[in-house]
Amino acid sequence: MPNQFNKLPIVIDASYLKPNVTSDMIASRKEKISQIDGQLRSGNHPGSDFTGWMKPDQILSADEMSRLKATAKRLRDETDVLLVIGIGGSYLGARAVIEALADDPDKVVYAGHNISAHYMTRLKKQLAGKRVAINVISKSGTTTEPAIASRIMRKLAASSKHIVATTDSKKGALLQLAKTEGYETFVVPDNIGGRYSVLSAVGLLPVAYAGVDIDALVSGAAKCAGLCSNADPISNPAYFYAAARNVLYHQGFSIEMLASFEPRLHFMAEWWKQLYGESEGKENMAIFPASVDFTTDLHSMGQYIQEGRRILAETFLIIDGGEPSLKIPTDADDSDGLGYLAGKEVSYVNSKAYEATAKAHRDGGVPNMTIHLEKLDAYSLGALIYFFEIACAVGGLMLGVNPFDQPGVEAYKKEMFKLLGKPGFESAEDQCLEPKFVHF
Amino acid sequence: MPNQFNKLPIVIDASYLKPNVTSDMIASRKEKISQIDGQLRSGNHPGSDFTGWMKPDQILSADEMSRLKATAKRLRDETDVLLVIGIGGSYLGARAVIEALADDPDKVVYAGHNISAHYMTRLKKQLAGKRVAINVISKSGTTTEPAIASRIMRKLAASSKHIVATTDSKKGALLQLAKTEGYETFVVPDNIGGRYSVLSAVGLLPVAYAGVDIDALVSGAAKCAGLCSNADPISNPAYFYAAARNVLYHQGFSIEMLASFEPRLHFMAEWWKQLYGESEGKENMAIFPASVDFTTDLHSMGQYIQEGRRILAETFLIIDGGEPSLKIPTDADDSDGLGYLAGKEVSYVNSKAYEATAKAHRDGGVPNMTIHLEKLDAYSLGALIYFFEIACAVGGLMLGVNPFDQPGVEAYKKEMFKLLGKPGFESAEDQCLEPKFVHF
Repeated sequence: MPNQFNKLPIVIDASYLKPNVTSDMIASRKEKISQIDGQLRSGNHPGSDFTGWMKPDQILSADEMSRLKATAKRLRDETDVLLVIGIGGSYLGARAVIEALADDPDKVVYAGHNISAHYMTRLKKQLAGKRVAINVISKSGTTTEPAIASRIMRKLAASSKHIVATTDSKKGALLQLAKTEGYETFVVPDNIGGRYSVLSAVGLLPVAYAGVDIDALVSGAAKCAGLCSNADPISNPAYFYAAARNVLYHQGFSIEMLASFEPRLHFMAEWWKQLYGESEGKENMAIFPASVDFTTDLHSMGQYIQEGRRILAETFLIIDGGEPSLKIPTDADDSDGLGYLAGKEVSYVNSKAYEATAKAHRDGGVPNMTIHLEKLDAYSLGALIYFFEIACAVGGLMLGVNPFDQPGVEAYKKEMFKLLGKPGFESAEDQCLEPKFVHF
Repeated sequence: MPNQFNKLPIVIDASYLKPNVTSDMIASRKEKISQIDGQLRSGNHPGSDFTGWMKPDQILSADEMSRLKATAKRLRDETDVLLVIGIGGSYLGARAVIEALADDPDKVVYAGHNISAHYMTRLKKQLAGKRVAINVISKSGTTTEPAIASRIMRKLAASSKHIVATTDSKKGALLQLAKTEGYETFVVPDNIGGRYSVLSAVGLLPVAYAGVDIDALVSGAAKCAGLCSNADPISNPAYFYAAARNVLYHQGFSIEMLASFEPRLHFMAEWWKQLYGESEGKENMAIFPASVDFTTDLHSMGQYIQEGRRILAETFLIIDGGEPSLKIPTDADDSDGLGYLAGKEVSYVNSKAYEATAKAHRDGGVPNMTIHLEKLDAYSLGALIYFFEIACAVGGLMLGVNPFDQPGVEAYKKEMFKLLGKPGFESAEDQCLEPKFVHF
């Protein structure tokens, strides 16, 4: 392994990008990327007010970090479960880390990320009789989904000491409510957008409650920030990833699938989909981010990937080591034909399934690369988070869009406010929607 | 509502397919579809040995159905949890129905659908101390993933009376094992492929264990089979759906997203992805099936859908009624600005979110249609299952592929068997994979 990566727990294997992507094509992006890197570091680019995430260990002050850990510990000691109320960037990063790393991810549950009466009714039943802590996460406090869930669920907390608000530092409905009710508060930073906020208090409080080592998480990210600060896409793996995606996109690959072989990475892929889809999907451009959980989805989406329309590229997210030992038992009756695997580690078989899949998909016309994580722990996952964030920022700027805004998210909200008669959104039109037709 | 649909709990709203899809375009598919319909009903088409699902109420005999219900009841009475061991079509249909309809979906858990040591280790811990029933579902009994899980997990059942095998009626490893060990068995029919098997014993036993009314499920499907037997795509909603997808595909729409506003439909979308991806994704063709859970994913994928590359079409899956009553509480302090919704039903707000989203996405260039379900119960869901199955069969035949095979799924398996040294798959080559490179 080249020296320049010897401290980064991430390695990219790009051998199956060939022949679609060559080193010459990556090198052809070098000047552009170097320019973007300079802009990012000097704050001279669209969205330059939103790069607070680039210094992961400076997002919270030491004092704030201590207070956050103390609060997480107190809530953990005094309650059975944490209910996180937030949507999009206000919950997805925390959930991704918790599902990937927590010993018991079920100690954290979620609301405010949908408008389902069925979901909330069932959740209320599940929480009955439990000591519930609540973390409401919303910069404004007026986002419809979490505001509804907050009204319905807040009463489940035993006392206001078990409710924490993560919100704007100076203004807004949730800050006001917190002051009135005496909730402890943490800050949603002004210079970090939702989808980049997992290493701020937005993500760290729920993650700490779940028992994950948030110092290691942040320090992995900070290490990655240091090691991925080289502007050359051939030697900087994050910029290599950005360059390779850009090449694939311009060759007409419409879809990038993030594929893992570990179910506990499912929500990392969901987080990745928001990060890339929301950062790049503008001005009628960008690769559509999709995800698959293998080998599960080899038995559902596998046929399409192998032989369907050739518009797919694939990025494998692979854990190289540190998985629990679990051996395939010997069976005197070998009728299942599995005897050749008896005594083998399940993780060994899984790693061969990955290698076989990467080869089969390449052979079927799906260019793919692999992001190898040394192992899945807080340090490595922190590094991976930063890796994806910086590559995404560079990728969006390569497309010429602002990777830190999300103007399109307002469209459905505006229509919804009209339909619901929200003050200020009343429509002069009789009816926003055409009458409903069967067929046409 | 036209009379011909008055007993079908499904209505399609196609108004937002315009201007991309017009009734003339649908009508232009009429002759082709009529021909395919004739072939399907006379068994004169590729894959004609695999249409057993077309008569949903004849898949199981009355005696088999009674035995299945009795077994489900006995297992339910004698155990706390059912572990389903299966992959792809051998578990996804059951899971889709259980998550959508069961009062307590957590009474059924899953293994054999991945090769994760972490997943299986955690699951074993969760099951410790519980009375576990096991349903191993595999036609051959030699599929790698369920065979591994079966070896590891089988011992968790208290006795062989709590293990049921759903497998081939005449031969195979699992049938042999069941005979040796004295497991009760149910049949994976010869004339129904995995992804179409949810209404056979494959799906029905777990679904019955979960407490869902399987008679209603089957009778909804049978009703739909009767009502969707008209060959005209203008008046048969299933054929309309097939025709509309075909038009969109030929216009260059590469991705169809199935979008619901109910989290409990998440696995119905996963089932749908297998059904369509595996049936159609052949010979470098077909729409890529993706799914989103709204409003959750409006805050992650919403930006891309609204403004990204214009290759998306969308199908909403909407529940029109019967949702639980849950009202948005009044709050004296109206700082969250939600006062205009106080006293309103959450399901009402959700329905407006859907209407707003459909309009916003149409305005943003995403043609979309909506499949309305009268309500979400076993009868309606059974109808929906058949609706999707028949539309998929017709859609695949319109593309000119066999919608009942899945040759591409073997590709990764062959590579994996080589790498693992499975007898009969040894490779003469030193190494199947190229050496691993960092970058290139």
